[in-house]
Amino acid sequence: MNNQLDSLKEVLLMGPGPSCVPPAVYTALSKPTIGHLDPQFIAIMDEIKVLLQRVMQTQNRLTLPISGTGSAGMETCFVNLVETGNTVLILVNGVFGLRMADVAGRLGAQVDTLEFEWGKPVVPEQVQAQLDRKRYDIVAVVHAETSTGVCNPIEAIAALVKPSGALFLVDAVTSLGGMPVATDTWGADALYSGTQKCLSCPPGLAPVTFSERAVAKLLNRQTKVPNWYLDLSMIVNYWEGAQRAYHHTAPINMLYGLYQALYSILDEGMTSVFDRHRQSHLSLVSALEAMGMEMLVAPEYRLPMLNAVKIPDSMDDAAVRQKLLKDHRIEIGAGLGPLAGKIWRIGVMGHTARRSNIDRLIHALEAVS
Amino acid sequence: MNNQLDSLKEVLLMGPGPSCVPPAVYTALSKPTIGHLDPQFIAIMDEIKVLLQRVMQTQNRLTLPISGTGSAGMETCFVNLVETGNTVLILVNGVFGLRMADVAGRLGAQVDTLEFEWGKPVVPEQVQAQLDRKRYDIVAVVHAETSTGVCNPIEAIAALVKPSGALFLVDAVTSLGGMPVATDTWGADALYSGTQKCLSCPPGLAPVTFSERAVAKLLNRQTKVPNWYLDLSMIVNYWEGAQRAYHHTAPINMLYGLYQALYSILDEGMTSVFDRHRQSHLSLVSALEAMGMEMLVAPEYRLPMLNAVKIPDSMDDAAVRQKLLKDHRIEIGAGLGPLAGKIWRIGVMGHTARRSNIDRLIHALEAVS
Repeated sequence: MNNQLDSLKEVLLMGPGPSCVPPAVYTALSKPTIGHLDPQFIAIMDEIKVLLQRVMQTQNRLTLPISGTGSAGMETCFVNLVETGNTVLILVNGVFGLRMADVAGRLGAQVDTLEFEWGKPVVPEQVQAQLDRKRYDIVAVVHAETSTGVCNPIEAIAALVKPSGALFLVDAVTSLGGMPVATDTWGADALYSGTQKCLSCPPGLAPVTFSERAVAKLLNRQTKVPNWYLDLSMIVNYWEGAQRAYHHTAPINMLYGLYQALYSILDEGMTSVFDRHRQSHLSLVSALEAMGMEMLVAPEYRLPMLNAVKIPDSMDDAAVRQKLLKDHRIEIGAGLGPLAGKIWRIGVMGHTARRSNIDRLIHALEAVS
Repeated sequence: MNNQLDSLKEVLLMGPGPSCVPPAVYTALSKPTIGHLDPQFIAIMDEIKVLLQRVMQTQNRLTLPISGTGSAGMETCFVNLVETGNTVLILVNGVFGLRMADVAGRLGAQVDTLEFEWGKPVVPEQVQAQLDRKRYDIVAVVHAETSTGVCNPIEAIAALVKPSGALFLVDAVTSLGGMPVATDTWGADALYSGTQKCLSCPPGLAPVTFSERAVAKLLNRQTKVPNWYLDLSMIVNYWEGAQRAYHHTAPINMLYGLYQALYSILDEGMTSVFDRHRQSHLSLVSALEAMGMEMLVAPEYRLPMLNAVKIPDSMDDAAVRQKLLKDHRIEIGAGLGPLAGKIWRIGVMGHTARRSNIDRLIHALEAVS
């Protein structure tokens, strides 16, 4: 039996995530595993919380990585905050809004969705109208819709949700580390992300932060969180305080990777990192437009890190993606749901967001088309 | 700000897990991240399933690693198989049996526990008496109780559970890879493990296997699995079939690590690996007894990989563990619950299970005591 890892070929990751991982993070991943209660490890955990607070722009004490991928972050926020019969409003304009509705519904929430066209942003006026019609315990929205490349107007939505009394829950899986995620300024009560997008760490962890209001709701639940593994009221006892109480064994080496990824971002400087994403995005869009291609999303709502481009009639969706991968070792993403076969999703996330990578993709696209 | 990873000191891991990780697994962890739908990665996933089937001694088609640590494996088995009001019997003789009861209770099961003394095994006659008194949908037990070092008589318990009609759920977190885990021979319907014990991979994944009966119960549920992230009915669509449907982004590099860990075990040969654990255990016990120390568990119920030794009156629990860690870079485990301060838990798991490590620990114990 051959060991498949011996022949593994590196790929330039320009899809919707995972993104390319920098050498320092690979080095971190293979540092010696130590115990989850070792003082050396506790010190790293403590610093991860501080680094996450900076990148998530929050003073929230409950700020830590969940031991699962980004979707586990979504599950964590809902399972800790939803009690049976709670009213939840989900603003949907893509796959991840739909996923939120599925997650919350399984937990016994009364879920309403407010749907918007895929490729267009959530419209605050319609949110206000719905909030006027009905009282919600939780309102949830995706900041960066990975399925469409749309940036939703979180600040404007937050300004409507806060006075309504609802908790405001934000998905920042794709945005965190690539553009400002202003947790405290927005007044987000629960916000989660993933490691494999603009943090440029392999998938496997989900940073999560809860405001004091969210923590109060968690601590005043009528019933236990119906998920032992993701119960934040227990997990914090491992991540905080003088006595660290064992809950589950932390994914040690993945946490080394996240530590290094956050460290590298702050070392480069968040403003520089955001600029690098923005510049990569602008270079990519100009080059695609120069090839005669058209973007799905209007300029003012475009995400820098996830670029949805319409597939020209002259090009075959699957064939182009396969040639890019096989002949050029470049991965780009397919469309999802109603956009399947209609768009490609080109990621310039984290370590991937560099001019040289844009150039390599454009040359390859020219070669295969 | 110093990078704490630069000064990270390696530790000989002889606690209850994580265990020492072999060089080949560290190398695997830092292989280039590729996409979760890349054909190269799908091929690795396919082989992981086959390797897991061999190590778990099962033909079960639904055999795959869950994207979370061992406790996520426990959560997965219960959340997929329990429906509200189901009757569940948990056989408890340590921390992990108690945890099962907590997990199942949160999911709306009617949980009964049958409790046995910590340090002693589950008594099949008492299980039979309980099964005669009441009908259960699920009976669950821990194979290797990591909190006490006891091996429960799974084969004998299985022989009672099967005729009762209940599904039989087994925790093999600590045993898998260190002693026979005969899923099919036992007739276990759901069995889960973790990577950081005898598989000698860092923590972060939970191998899980479901029998056809368990899959039938899953597919015939009245309600959706109340946990989107761990819903096996969706996860299998990513792990099986010609068209792989994206569910959540798999933890790519951790899966490289698991692939290599399984590959290495099968390369060495499972019989040899089990022998190495057994020999390490016997060497350790003789050496401890030669120092005048006494084991908690009677010889016939001792696990090879987790050795509970009574702390002599002459030794200070915390001081000895701290000196071992600080002066000798060796980690051993403390007692939990009623055994806190009374026992140490010495692991000889996976790559740790070698004579040279036993010798190093014994010399260090002699030096600090």
